[in-house]
Amino acid sequence: MSGAMEAPTGRIVVASNRGPASFAVEDDGTVVARPGAGGLATVLDGALASHGGLWIAAAMTEDERRAADGTIPAPSGRYDVRLLAFDPAVYDGFYNGIANRVLWFLHHLLWDTPTSPSFGAETWSAWEAYRTVNGAFADVLAGEGDDPAFLVQDYHLSLVPAMLRSRRPEASIAWFSHTPFAGAHDLRILPEPMRRALLEGLLGADVVGFHAEPWAANFREACRTHLGTEVDDRGAIRWEGRRVSVGVFPISIDTEGLSRLAGTPEVDARLAELDGDLGPDVRLVLRVDRLEPSKNVVRGLEAFALFLDARPRWRGRVRFLALLNPSREAVPEYRAYLEACREAARAVDERFGTETWHPVELRLRDDRDGSLAGYRRFDVLVVNPTFDGMNLVAKEGPWLNERDGVLVLSTNAGAATELGEGALLVDPFDVRATAEAIGRALDMAPEERARRAGQLRDAVAANRLEGWVSAQLRALGRG
Amino acid sequence: MSGAMEAPTGRIVVASNRGPASFAVEDDGTVVARPGAGGLATVLDGALASHGGLWIAAAMTEDERRAADGTIPAPSGRYDVRLLAFDPAVYDGFYNGIANRVLWFLHHLLWDTPTSPSFGAETWSAWEAYRTVNGAFADVLAGEGDDPAFLVQDYHLSLVPAMLRSRRPEASIAWFSHTPFAGAHDLRILPEPMRRALLEGLLGADVVGFHAEPWAANFREACRTHLGTEVDDRGAIRWEGRRVSVGVFPISIDTEGLSRLAGTPEVDARLAELDGDLGPDVRLVLRVDRLEPSKNVVRGLEAFALFLDARPRWRGRVRFLALLNPSREAVPEYRAYLEACREAARAVDERFGTETWHPVELRLRDDRDGSLAGYRRFDVLVVNPTFDGMNLVAKEGPWLNERDGVLVLSTNAGAATELGEGALLVDPFDVRATAEAIGRALDMAPEERARRAGQLRDAVAANRLEGWVSAQLRALGRG
Repeated sequence: MSGAMEAPTGRIVVASNRGPASFAVEDDGTVVARPGAGGLATVLDGALASHGGLWIAAAMTEDERRAADGTIPAPSGRYDVRLLAFDPAVYDGFYNGIANRVLWFLHHLLWDTPTSPSFGAETWSAWEAYRTVNGAFADVLAGEGDDPAFLVQDYHLSLVPAMLRSRRPEASIAWFSHTPFAGAHDLRILPEPMRRALLEGLLGADVVGFHAEPWAANFREACRTHLGTEVDDRGAIRWEGRRVSVGVFPISIDTEGLSRLAGTPEVDARLAELDGDLGPDVRLVLRVDRLEPSKNVVRGLEAFALFLDARPRWRGRVRFLALLNPSREAVPEYRAYLEACREAARAVDERFGTETWHPVELRLRDDRDGSLAGYRRFDVLVVNPTFDGMNLVAKEGPWLNERDGVLVLSTNAGAATELGEGALLVDPFDVRATAEAIGRALDMAPEERARRAGQLRDAVAANRLEGWVSAQLRALGRG
Repeated sequence: MSGAMEAPTGRIVVASNRGPASFAVEDDGTVVARPGAGGLATVLDGALASHGGLWIAAAMTEDERRAADGTIPAPSGRYDVRLLAFDPAVYDGFYNGIANRVLWFLHHLLWDTPTSPSFGAETWSAWEAYRTVNGAFADVLAGEGDDPAFLVQDYHLSLVPAMLRSRRPEASIAWFSHTPFAGAHDLRILPEPMRRALLEGLLGADVVGFHAEPWAANFREACRTHLGTEVDDRGAIRWEGRRVSVGVFPISIDTEGLSRLAGTPEVDARLAELDGDLGPDVRLVLRVDRLEPSKNVVRGLEAFALFLDARPRWRGRVRFLALLNPSREAVPEYRAYLEACREAARAVDERFGTETWHPVELRLRDDRDGSLAGYRRFDVLVVNPTFDGMNLVAKEGPWLNERDGVLVLSTNAGAATELGEGALLVDPFDVRATAEAIGRALDMAPEERARRAGQLRDAVAANRLEGWVSAQLRALGRG
């Protein structure tokens, strides 16, 4: 009796580029795990712990490469991790060449199309590396018995579903996108072989999941436009005799864990420091982001300048603090974007600053405690990405905030679906509207602030973190 | 009896930003017309001449402003022209602020989204100007009796159909796009009020026309996504109790007129000069474009370098001549693009050039005769726009060519639909594929060249120019 014929055990196998933890090998050969900080690690860790299973990820460091032979217990000890080691040049082509330089840019519409992207020999060679790494994941997944539910994560592994399907035709495969999904028209930027491989790769899954409906609609329309597929009345796609369900599974946050992290003495101290720094009469406009071109930092600063222009009585009584965690600094577009952010901040400061009042401060470092303190303290939180799969800052900030702070939120963030009632929604390219929202937030009556803050907390609490995996398992018929 | 109740007379009223001719006022007050060179002027001039009617356009110069009171006979004398004069600041907001900086960029996907566009006070004020100019056109059109067929042209006048509809509910209105149409997802870049006004503006028409099916499909999908409209099985949209037909009307060229223009002694002389310059053994790779970021000049040069790299035996035996007509030089993106083109050309020349052989030449001027000579002489014509509504170079070049030259054509040009069989189609962002197509074209056997050149000429000849207007009139029920 083959594995595929056995009754499913409820076991889960997760595949993602980055694993749930980072691993170090000590002198005596012991592998020591340091848990990851990401929301994905938390949610999948919980699901794996309760269902049992395996998490397969790429080895990121030399230590992880050395640990890549067998399986390693997860930090919780309740499931196993297997790391796949790749030739560094192949991994570089996969990760930097395609995942981050092509697919991330594609799904976030980040290209300056007159000159970028340019698919030359280097990109095509990276594409081969992307296929190789996806194929290696599919090989290892295909070797997992007991008919598990395969949960394949994100744009790094776009080809895995079809590759796994060809090796295991009866497998139960869900693929989930943590980013937006490109519009059908934008996919014309990809050369046809890549475009086709990408869409056909995802259609190898039984369930293709997104954080928000616009991204699911984009995927359906992309398949219709470029592959001629039909969509049934429940939004599923017919493909090669199978039914591919296209679903929306908005991820949530670990509210208890987050509250614990934000209540430590260290964060209390950072909050006291921030309070002292601001003084009792200065309002705080905050943003917390990875330094990333799609986060829309520059327009946020332009909007703050427009706001100071339109409501001069706020000058001297408000500060914009941008906590930006540097990211992908090897990518030229990211370096240029950092410079554009600095320049935009300088421009506001030069125009409005005084000897005693600096309206804008950019802090460029990885500072989790500082961010948590900021979440507790903000009066206005600006989350205005041009495009964003979900955006967890928009959930974490309002959850922790202690001052009925107002959330100014981009309509193009996946989170807008759940938080649109409590937030002030803005079109992210519309700096005038963003400026008006900042002003409206600061001038808002306490009752409205309290009502909206309550709506935001209720919306966050209503979406339980563990529901994210269980809904996908139900869509796979494993619920 | 109101005008709307009278039987239609077959009269046509055209509205466009730019008129069929430029007009000068002489010292004695006489208005002198100089015919326009554009394909649109030719085709609409013919239609107006046979149906009778009026062409309404914006006054562009001080002279045209002075002539803007009454109607002026068209150069052919067979219909009238009326010029609308606007306050220069209003016209600037309409034309530069919105039409060229927002809508052109939107429909050609030209933005570098991390920082551009940024809809601040200036853009919103330009938007008011755009509404004002569109409203003025609608006012004048609404005053035209005899129930004419209104043919409204292009993205400059996107709001006119609905504005005219509100003034004349029974009017017969066709709007035609000479550009691509933005993808539904890309329209998320526009602030919601602009996005809605744009789509609702066009839905005021009875017929919305495009050069190619992908742009029509984008429009339908945009209306579905952003307005929730339904599409019937013939591709029409239901809107406010009316049926809005969405059609594809690919424009052609005036083959007889073009052949005449290309057969003058001046063009013969330019061809002799070009022949002498190249010598008998050097093949010519040509491009002819307005200097415009969507024309994809830089990647074309990168592809030429890749080709020289991959097929070294062609070094010294081929030249790339780019005839680029400078355009919109006041727009920073266009100035930066010119510099990028120069830099890309320099890079090819530095890498491959010798004392006796310069592989690339850019000529930056308006040179109609030189272009016609190039059309007659090319061995390979590169037409690789990132996005292009139609692209008439792809039709004019093969029509005039005398050497069975090969057309390398972007899949994202509207012309690819009609010319795809004879041309070598390339994904325009794929420089490797473009390089291969150039190499394949130069190495192609004479029989295949002749066959393909014949297919191209047949395809151009099969689409008669006068059919473009008559098909739109038929779609309006005026055929």
